[in-house]
Amino acid sequence: MKKRIRAWLAEHTEEAVSWLAEAVQEQSEQGMEKGVQLLVADRLDKIGLDVTVYVPEGEEFLKHPYFCATRNDFSESPNVIGRWNGTGGGRSIVLNGHVDVVPAGDLNQWDEDPYSGKVADGKLYGRGSTDMKGGNLAAMLAVQALRETGCKLRGDVIFHSVVEEESGGAGTLSAVLEGFTADAAIIPEPTNMKIFPSQQGSMWFRVTVKGKAAHGGTRYEGVSAIEKSMIIVHALQKLENVRNERIIDPLYKNIPIPVPINIGKIMGGNWPSSVPDTVVLEGRIGVAPHETMEEVKDELHAAMAGIDDKWLREHPAEVEWFGAQWLPGMIDQEHELMQLLTKNFKDSQGYDPVIEASPWGTDGGVLTTIGDTPSIVFGPGVTAVAHYPNEYIEISKIIDAAEIIALTIFDWCGGSTD
Amino acid sequence: MKKRIRAWLAEHTEEAVSWLAEAVQEQSEQGMEKGVQLLVADRLDKIGLDVTVYVPEGEEFLKHPYFCATRNDFSESPNVIGRWNGTGGGRSIVLNGHVDVVPAGDLNQWDEDPYSGKVADGKLYGRGSTDMKGGNLAAMLAVQALRETGCKLRGDVIFHSVVEEESGGAGTLSAVLEGFTADAAIIPEPTNMKIFPSQQGSMWFRVTVKGKAAHGGTRYEGVSAIEKSMIIVHALQKLENVRNERIIDPLYKNIPIPVPINIGKIMGGNWPSSVPDTVVLEGRIGVAPHETMEEVKDELHAAMAGIDDKWLREHPAEVEWFGAQWLPGMIDQEHELMQLLTKNFKDSQGYDPVIEASPWGTDGGVLTTIGDTPSIVFGPGVTAVAHYPNEYIEISKIIDAAEIIALTIFDWCGGSTD
Repeated sequence: MKKRIRAWLAEHTEEAVSWLAEAVQEQSEQGMEKGVQLLVADRLDKIGLDVTVYVPEGEEFLKHPYFCATRNDFSESPNVIGRWNGTGGGRSIVLNGHVDVVPAGDLNQWDEDPYSGKVADGKLYGRGSTDMKGGNLAAMLAVQALRETGCKLRGDVIFHSVVEEESGGAGTLSAVLEGFTADAAIIPEPTNMKIFPSQQGSMWFRVTVKGKAAHGGTRYEGVSAIEKSMIIVHALQKLENVRNERIIDPLYKNIPIPVPINIGKIMGGNWPSSVPDTVVLEGRIGVAPHETMEEVKDELHAAMAGIDDKWLREHPAEVEWFGAQWLPGMIDQEHELMQLLTKNFKDSQGYDPVIEASPWGTDGGVLTTIGDTPSIVFGPGVTAVAHYPNEYIEISKIIDAAEIIALTIFDWCGGSTD
Repeated sequence: MKKRIRAWLAEHTEEAVSWLAEAVQEQSEQGMEKGVQLLVADRLDKIGLDVTVYVPEGEEFLKHPYFCATRNDFSESPNVIGRWNGTGGGRSIVLNGHVDVVPAGDLNQWDEDPYSGKVADGKLYGRGSTDMKGGNLAAMLAVQALRETGCKLRGDVIFHSVVEEESGGAGTLSAVLEGFTADAAIIPEPTNMKIFPSQQGSMWFRVTVKGKAAHGGTRYEGVSAIEKSMIIVHALQKLENVRNERIIDPLYKNIPIPVPINIGKIMGGNWPSSVPDTVVLEGRIGVAPHETMEEVKDELHAAMAGIDDKWLREHPAEVEWFGAQWLPGMIDQEHELMQLLTKNFKDSQGYDPVIEASPWGTDGGVLTTIGDTPSIVFGPGVTAVAHYPNEYIEISKIIDAAEIIALTIFDWCGGSTD
């Protein structure tokens, strides 16, 4: 069966790459996903799946406690669901991939048009190639290969082509609220073919630190919000230490800081010779797979409240939770889907996969926590080029991932050949 | 003679206040000083002085090493010089005041139009009332009172009504380069009637700190420019300590930090979940009266170079000197003009004046260093309201200052009565 899948994939690589080029050319930043979603829907339809194209909406979705997006209107951002109903009695699987891409950024840093879809030296270039239209293609090829080599499955395969992952997963939230869940899931995000059973969640926070303005020449009459913000930074560093020292999961053994606190932005003061009366810090706190968002928020608030500084006790820094958030995700490492994926990786590639925890959030958090669908993140593409100029994906890895995913679906969903 | 001066001032207060209201109403932010300067020229002319109105310009001025301004074109910003030539053989004096005002800022914080010139409860309100059109009026009244009570002087009185003090003194630089210097000077800046023989200078600096970008989830792959900027802030705090510990001048005995280093602005990073690769700090370093600007620059550069941090040694923070600078100013505390001013203050007010060092720069630095005209800063108005909303000046203080300055001019320039 492996040989037939492999042969089918080899025969269809050229067509698949040409489709991927077209998908990359369909620029799909947030709010512009419709074009590529129609391409996906068309491809799923041709494969023979039952296709649903729908716009995420409704009270349950928009008012959900984990709804996180910068907008309420998704009319140009439909989700696409493709369903292959099994013959019955088998375990079901979700294959989940997002089509939204981050902006291209500074065009001068790109060697080519970011939306070229150019193929050279076995790589396909362009924004979204690795994150994660290449992974989506791998999942679609896996399904198509199974169907076209005559496999039957007892369990259902549900393909999610979702929007809005880059802002915190509202697309997947909608999909699970619409009932598109399963017994487990694979998300072909660019893990560089590593297997991530645990996925770090994260939240953004903003800390506003108040000082007292004064003329710089008599700065002792004021209180510098910059100096006070250094105390805040120090407290956040201490909190990061405490939070990471207690993580003993061996999945993190090669990761220097399993759940980092990153302070990404600082802004304060408005005149060189005035004592700054306000500093704003913005950052991201990693959430461990076993933690809830609420626990992490409470711990950060407690760290701020525990700062031993008279001024800050009397003028506490204000903490806000804003912007994006990603729930952490997790599947038991002994889960049978983990075992099957690991085995099929080795059968296909000839060596054991690297099994690690992801350093970033994925839609696996929403699938696991809201959709009760434990998820593994595994896919082609190098994380290092995601969100960067000259993003690319190696075509051979797409094909390898497709083969491994196909074999795993076959085993998990109770496959049989004609 | 004191009685005649006092009586003359009492008789002319109403007219003088009405002129000051008009002067405040002439909005004179940088580049808009012409209107108020024409008012000043007219008043000086009526007093009977030789009036020169001229636009600062020319190579010597614009290319001067201490030329400091954000512009080269002063066509709407003339200087006004009024000259009262003495009968000969006496010491000359410069009375120096600036007419440029800082912007009104947030109008919501003002109870009235910032340019109302409104009089209530013995105060005149408006931007520039205290800093320093009120002081200028005091100096003009002093001259007028001397002339109109029939005093003769042996030495010359040169009144400077200059532009551009708020950006570092280009107006006074032009005046001294044009030869309008004297044996000593009084600058009626708002000292709240304190006498400032020494004036702190200052310079603005910008420090750019480099880090290395990375995703916040793998922040250990990057180097946070925010964390590195904290090392820079710490080094600047240490430098401030060292610089201030060596100041033993008793003038500074009540000043907690004689020459502060103020970090007024911080900006860095652009995304909460990215490791920030650049932080920019902007600040002001105070310059002690006995220091040169070059010595202070060298000391700050040395402090940066001495930072014991591997990353910063390999990626040194970049220091720039930008924006405004004010030379420090100083007159010997035993100087006869100091003694005369102190004596006349006591004679007029009945108690000893407070003698201190100023916590900010004035045009006294340029007068002292470039114009060889040692300067005392002494004037009406509360420093605390300068540059703030609802700026005001107490009218009685203008009249007191005028009396004290008149008596001091009389003594210094060799006065005689009819």
